[in-house]
Amino acid sequence: MADPALFEFLHTEMVAELWAQDPDPCPGGQKTSLLVLEGMGFRVGQALGERLPRETLTFREELDILKFLCKDLWVAVFHKQMDSLRTNHQGTYVLQDNSFPLLVRMASGLQYLEEAPKFLAFTCGLLRGTLSTLGVKSLVTASVAALPACKFQVVIQKL
Amino acid sequence: MADPALFEFLHTEMVAELWAQDPDPCPGGQKTSLLVLEGMGFRVGQALGERLPRETLTFREELDILKFLCKDLWVAVFHKQMDSLRTNHQGTYVLQDNSFPLLVRMASGLQYLEEAPKFLAFTCGLLRGTLSTLGVKSLVTASVAALPACKFQVVIQKL
Repeated sequence: MADPALFEFLHTEMVAELWAQDPDPCPGGQKTSLLVLEGMGFRVGQALGERLPRETLTFREELDILKFLCKDLWVAVFHKQMDSLRTNHQGTYVLQDNSFPLLVRMASGLQYLEEAPKFLAFTCGLLRGTLSTLGVKSLVTASVAALPACKFQVVIQKL
Repeated sequence: MADPALFEFLHTEMVAELWAQDPDPCPGGQKTSLLVLEGMGFRVGQALGERLPRETLTFREELDILKFLCKDLWVAVFHKQMDSLRTNHQGTYVLQDNSFPLLVRMASGLQYLEEAPKFLAFTCGLLRGTLSTLGVKSLVTASVAALPACKFQVVIQKL
């Protein structure tokens, strides 16, 4: 069986390598490496979306698709389910993971919060890419209030 | 259970991203991205080496360590065992995988052989890193004669 830590180790190395290459942006600018990580996540999400056993599900509603991400996608990547899913029933969903695996190894403390975005960008892309394969266009952002919990906000882009 | 394709998809993205960033080297020069990939593999190998169930093995001989790579490490990363292991009994080992997963998705044909090194550098580092954690210093190179088979040559560095 594949070692479940392999993905985490590789993700850590990828973040470190891209961060080392990327010079500091101008004040207020976004680091290129965040965009690169998001793009890599998007393409991995697209590919995974093709493989996940979605034929057993009937996606009658948008909410079914989001539940699929919280269960099947999360298990395939992080070996656990998302802890909660909330929606305003107007196309915005908040997915909360109370102990996000890619943040668990970080030391906790307010001073580390500013390091969190680089460990979330890939996964934002992963969600957006999987949704794209399922025919849903979206914007995905992430936020952290207390490590290692985090929230992913998915806003569906209506055609 | 983790999707076994996750590592492959992420590896593919990582190779593509590093390749895109890396300008062509001067003739005869080696691309920086190969060294970067090898280094990432080394650190992932070091970390994995700490986790693999080596306490159940008694590494009385160098050959036992190489067998451990061919079996436990390969299963943890590629979900299969190495196909053969040969040695000259003087510190050089040749590990052959007849269908190396990171090459399987490549089209076959002689014209693709020159693309192969970028799909092997990470794994060379992975072997070297795992050996390092097990207390063995080595040089690891890879070669491909017919896709998707490849050979990894491990030369143990005696102290």
